[in-house]
Amino acid sequence: MICEILCVGTELLLGDIVNTDGAFIARETAALGFSSYHQTTVGDNPERLREAVNLALSRSDVVILTGGLGPTCDDITKNAVADAFGKKMIFDEATRADIEAYFRRVGRPMTENNLSQCWVPEGATVFYNKWGTAPGLGIEGEIGGQTKYAVLLPGPPAECEPMFEACAKPWLARLSDDVIYSLNLHLWGIGESAAESILRPMMESSENPTVAPYACEHEVRIRVTARARTLEEAKALCRAKADEIRQTDVGEKIYTETDNPFDAKNAVVTTLIGELRRRGMTFATAESCTAGMIGSSVGDIPGASDVFVGGIISYTNDVKERVLGVPHETLETVGAVSEECAAAMAEGARRQTGADIAVSVTGIAGPGGGTPEKPVGTVCFGVATEKGTHTETRHFNGKNDRAKIRRLTTANAMMLAIRTLRGDLAP
Amino acid sequence: MICEILCVGTELLLGDIVNTDGAFIARETAALGFSSYHQTTVGDNPERLREAVNLALSRSDVVILTGGLGPTCDDITKNAVADAFGKKMIFDEATRADIEAYFRRVGRPMTENNLSQCWVPEGATVFYNKWGTAPGLGIEGEIGGQTKYAVLLPGPPAECEPMFEACAKPWLARLSDDVIYSLNLHLWGIGESAAESILRPMMESSENPTVAPYACEHEVRIRVTARARTLEEAKALCRAKADEIRQTDVGEKIYTETDNPFDAKNAVVTTLIGELRRRGMTFATAESCTAGMIGSSVGDIPGASDVFVGGIISYTNDVKERVLGVPHETLETVGAVSEECAAAMAEGARRQTGADIAVSVTGIAGPGGGTPEKPVGTVCFGVATEKGTHTETRHFNGKNDRAKIRRLTTANAMMLAIRTLRGDLAP
Repeated sequence: MICEILCVGTELLLGDIVNTDGAFIARETAALGFSSYHQTTVGDNPERLREAVNLALSRSDVVILTGGLGPTCDDITKNAVADAFGKKMIFDEATRADIEAYFRRVGRPMTENNLSQCWVPEGATVFYNKWGTAPGLGIEGEIGGQTKYAVLLPGPPAECEPMFEACAKPWLARLSDDVIYSLNLHLWGIGESAAESILRPMMESSENPTVAPYACEHEVRIRVTARARTLEEAKALCRAKADEIRQTDVGEKIYTETDNPFDAKNAVVTTLIGELRRRGMTFATAESCTAGMIGSSVGDIPGASDVFVGGIISYTNDVKERVLGVPHETLETVGAVSEECAAAMAEGARRQTGADIAVSVTGIAGPGGGTPEKPVGTVCFGVATEKGTHTETRHFNGKNDRAKIRRLTTANAMMLAIRTLRGDLAP
Repeated sequence: MICEILCVGTELLLGDIVNTDGAFIARETAALGFSSYHQTTVGDNPERLREAVNLALSRSDVVILTGGLGPTCDDITKNAVADAFGKKMIFDEATRADIEAYFRRVGRPMTENNLSQCWVPEGATVFYNKWGTAPGLGIEGEIGGQTKYAVLLPGPPAECEPMFEACAKPWLARLSDDVIYSLNLHLWGIGESAAESILRPMMESSENPTVAPYACEHEVRIRVTARARTLEEAKALCRAKADEIRQTDVGEKIYTETDNPFDAKNAVVTTLIGELRRRGMTFATAESCTAGMIGSSVGDIPGASDVFVGGIISYTNDVKERVLGVPHETLETVGAVSEECAAAMAEGARRQTGADIAVSVTGIAGPGGGTPEKPVGTVCFGVATEKGTHTETRHFNGKNDRAKIRRLTTANAMMLAIRTLRGDLAP
């Protein structure tokens, strides 16, 4: 089954909002085993919307539309889809009762224009909307001798996402025989092209699962994706391929595995939290150029308070000295961006918070503040444990912007703590 | 000029990443005065990519492609576009030198597959990439008797966005006769529908500039957009309309104005920094549930070290007590999520760092940790100055996710400091 997403909304074309519906539905339909080759966005224009609906239904089995369903949209989406399927619009009394009940629930009067939402294509499955007023729809019919399916959902993510889960997903699941499962292998200390040159033979020879590298800002991932009749079978295929990858030269660069977007995005910090939890150890931070970004990243993870006690943001030299106890002469002689300062910061954070392990960062995020000896992108790291303190200096590309240097610094600081905990670094 | 965005990437079709490039470029091209009717996403499949390129070039004057340019993509995007324009690929020595220089700068060896990035369509303008390796391209040519334009940019937002600004934007600007200018009026303490009901007559009667409300997560903005032959003329039109809006009941809710996406996104924090700088005052933080997000947001702004000295992340009660001096009995009796604790945290941060003003937050970000008395979303704030300490409690919607509650807490904490500095709050 080929599935295509068609998002309707002029605000998307103007860039006023980011299309998160598209990513959400894409992820969900991929997990249902549908293939996806196109995603399209059009505005609230009847003619172009009709063209887009017809094109999508001509090349895909299932078209999922989001947006263009509210009381002020003149129902252009519903009518375009009904016409494509050659279906009449009928007034649905059950939808009317549902919308009236919604307005009673939120205690607001229902305006007349809401009644336009009660017109639905004949024979459609109505997805009642518990999160707003515009109902969703599931439509099935013959087009050009083939059975085609359309799903219509409201655009606001707070309605689209729960309605997809509750209504559209079960309606669609009956159409798919397969399940798709992806496993991400997260690499540290190797670039995309080096990883790819090692894995190219496997990438070319593997069809199920497929193997593909994916470079993000701070790391490279290898994505292993399998299609099978059951989730267990797909997982087993991915497991076997991942084990094969672990036998290559890429293997020792794998620091963790994830199988969903939240964990993938937070792979460094969840790995750090896992290593701390496993050892019953607590963690603290001393941040200068990141100004709290490391702490905030740890706080992104629910339950981080098991292992994260807190930290000190020492943006100025004065705070480095008075709160973290960095010696005045260190700041006067070698300066704040030095391994000596990083060491004193990490030790100070450990002493102040009582944590078992503390990391520190002090660097030049730019755009100003660089010198020939310490250009923008120079960052000194420290990691202090009861065994001692390790320091190192990294030079991130000075042409990177401030935000990127700070994000790279954050990932590197956490990875330094992971390597320390795993015993990969001499303290 | 009609402009269309075509994003290339299987990871977009799978929903692994959200398409922020599309929104960014849509906003930028709208500001250049281009019209936009379609956005499309396709995967790394040569045949479907060719079809999509040809369709886009048939219906639009300018096609902007993102993604599909890395060393591992087999250059399918470049070749598809070159073929559509009927142009040969040539090896560009200047690009080779630029990529070699990039690898020297980051201190990694260049692998052979990077050389594939040096092949460019004949006559193309090469946009050298200071943020990565894959160069971007500007291509101009006749297709079916009409002059068409294509721009190719790498997919990663950290490369796509600065390359658009530095290279593609000036290349595209010469194609437009008009200039579009937008002024954002940032509101605090009023919802979207209330703002809209006040401004509706103006929204309906204004054609140039247009007036539109835009609800973001933490605030409502009124966007005033003018089209004119010169930037000065467009700015003057927006200024007059903004002054008119300031005369309405919305006027007193405007806390700042911005005219570009970076400032708009950071309006709260830049307003805070401006208020501090104007008074020659310094700022510190004491963060529990935000875990460093307030400090990190201040650190996002270059030059924040003028006014931001640092802060304490007190994630556990122990750190609240030992570093910030929150009384043990406060934590034992009313608990960490209390205005008493928030007051002691803000005062402790001020004392420890020596800052003139300190804000504190302590709350329940969820998903766990809520109780009937203090449900998820309950956050206590404190703001301490030499004049005394103000506290208040906010209840963010418990249905919000953890990340959103923390972001709302961050914006509210900074706004509390702004209101204190402006004298809008009794301490």
